[in-house]
Amino acid sequence: MKRVRVALGERGYTIWIGQGLLGRLGEVARGCFPGGRALVVTDRNVASLHGERALRSLRRAGLSAGLIAVPAGERSKSLARLARIYDRLAALRFDRGCGVVALGGGVVGDLAGFAAATYLRGLPCIQAPTSLLAQVDSAVGGKTGIDHRAGKNLIGAFHQPSAVVSDLATLKSLPAREMRAGLAEVVKHAAIADPRLFAFLERRAADILRRKAPALEPVVVANCRIKARVVEKDERESGPRQVLNFGHTLGHAIEALWGYSNKMRHGEAVAIGMAAAARLSWEAGLCGRGDADRLVRLLERFGLPTSIRRPPDLAILRRAVASDKKTRRGQPHFVLLERVGKARIGCEVPPGRWREALSGGRPSRAPR
Amino acid sequence: MKRVRVALGERGYTIWIGQGLLGRLGEVARGCFPGGRALVVTDRNVASLHGERALRSLRRAGLSAGLIAVPAGERSKSLARLARIYDRLAALRFDRGCGVVALGGGVVGDLAGFAAATYLRGLPCIQAPTSLLAQVDSAVGGKTGIDHRAGKNLIGAFHQPSAVVSDLATLKSLPAREMRAGLAEVVKHAAIADPRLFAFLERRAADILRRKAPALEPVVVANCRIKARVVEKDERESGPRQVLNFGHTLGHAIEALWGYSNKMRHGEAVAIGMAAAARLSWEAGLCGRGDADRLVRLLERFGLPTSIRRPPDLAILRRAVASDKKTRRGQPHFVLLERVGKARIGCEVPPGRWREALSGGRPSRAPR
Repeated sequence: MKRVRVALGERGYTIWIGQGLLGRLGEVARGCFPGGRALVVTDRNVASLHGERALRSLRRAGLSAGLIAVPAGERSKSLARLARIYDRLAALRFDRGCGVVALGGGVVGDLAGFAAATYLRGLPCIQAPTSLLAQVDSAVGGKTGIDHRAGKNLIGAFHQPSAVVSDLATLKSLPAREMRAGLAEVVKHAAIADPRLFAFLERRAADILRRKAPALEPVVVANCRIKARVVEKDERESGPRQVLNFGHTLGHAIEALWGYSNKMRHGEAVAIGMAAAARLSWEAGLCGRGDADRLVRLLERFGLPTSIRRPPDLAILRRAVASDKKTRRGQPHFVLLERVGKARIGCEVPPGRWREALSGGRPSRAPR
Repeated sequence: MKRVRVALGERGYTIWIGQGLLGRLGEVARGCFPGGRALVVTDRNVASLHGERALRSLRRAGLSAGLIAVPAGERSKSLARLARIYDRLAALRFDRGCGVVALGGGVVGDLAGFAAATYLRGLPCIQAPTSLLAQVDSAVGGKTGIDHRAGKNLIGAFHQPSAVVSDLATLKSLPAREMRAGLAEVVKHAAIADPRLFAFLERRAADILRRKAPALEPVVVANCRIKARVVEKDERESGPRQVLNFGHTLGHAIEALWGYSNKMRHGEAVAIGMAAAARLSWEAGLCGRGDADRLVRLLERFGLPTSIRRPPDLAILRRAVASDKKTRRGQPHFVLLERVGKARIGCEVPPGRWREALSGGRPSRAPR
């Protein structure tokens, strides 16, 4: 078992990472929920795989525990589902000493985390991520939220969890496509902040895809460290945290245009966005050709898409980029690569180059 | 024009208090909303009284400004109304540089503040309170929220405003009953923290009720100072801020049992709760009989109720008290009075005494 501390003063917390940790969820919860009661929020798939184990652990630790399962998938990040969770918390007469356990992937973490953020103006919440994406990214940092038909995560709150319990064993049951989608964020963290992790990923790609624990554990730990350091510097995304947006400016737009459906996972859209950003970084003279190529190749090793054959028309693309919530005054800012392991925020990129970068067309260094 | 600073580091802000300040809303907003756009959230009554003036001021300052009006009354603090505000913010394509102006009383402040707290994980918000209750209490301190059928303000967030603009002229049009309800919180602040303000209220009660500016301005300023000092010590209500709960333990229960209707305003319920708490304080040997009497008399001067003829059955009352969100592990904590101007938090009071205190029955000092 490894632990990573997120040092945010009185909002600081520990990320626990290890095989079989779900069996120790109750121990952690006892410390976080002095009221002695917990509601596990999960999705129906995860409930059948891990729900009982989570409840058993909570009850063994002396907590009274219930469970609510939403349908799996992004569509559960809705006001309607949120209202059902509020109803349940009210029916259970939760007070501020009672807490929520978000057991599942990114959708559950965001939805349950937002319910916890807003019920009684804030209940303690334990994130128990069961997908790679959630373990390396979404469960850490306190972003919570639901979707609006005008955009993903348009409604939400910053609410740091009281603890994160990442059981690597849950990744065994993860569908291959989910695993790959999580690896997109892993590659992102390595590309913006950790050249050694990047090299490790290149070297151990096969073992990671096979979910060998000795290869997975250091990956999850390194990712949580990177994310923790970024969040510590900028809890509410006013500046440096924007670096985590690498690949997301175009990625989010693509994801939105594809309709947040099963056709395109978040990680896949981000992979396409990162590959495009890498091409744009080279084209802008910011990084070398070799760095951009390494990024694209690693994404391909992990079975991730790195281009789209027919990018949307520029007008449509611009509108989708402009509706991203990180846009200010209509001017989208890109995160570009200086080299593998180092990124630069706040870059402007002429919209005229976006489509070609997305289609994977050989970039040409424009006269500057 | 007076100003009171709420010193909360990077979340600090200024409360502006004066006659006709709504005409300067735009100046303030220009500094708070760098994106240059504002949505005024208000209720239909306030919209017809002050909506145009607010919009004009915003536009004169160069901001693009829209307005959304909800029905007046507590029922607008619902998920359904909140969803409409989200829809509007999305339709306007607000980014994080754009902001919300909450123009109205406590209901509008809570609803609009919560929308601002959660849209894009937090938009800047200016509170422009038009009721006495909001000017002296609810607009200051960052509490926002909506109701759930299981209880008032069960869903919410702490979100400090970027500024508060309190135009004393708006109090002229306030119905007498609303004015009295606001005075309940004024009396509360004086009773727990400011014996000089308490004496001023006793002396100038008639002028205050007639809304004479020379009497009103110092009252609003003093109240904002008291509230600001308490909030600075305890932004998220983990300890000292509980002192503001004076009169609210039984008051909230009464209000909930009366169904948050027009039959019982929040301030009226709090007045009854304070009078009961004063009786209990004397009974517990905490304060003198004279202090308890002064509190009850001042409330009566302001035309506020100080007892209910037939208090609810104890079992019903206990359930209502227990469902208050500040209750932890089922044990309700009272704020009691040590003397006029000083309160004590975390007091336990035997439930057997509650009903008699509410009915105004002459308290008897129980053997201790």
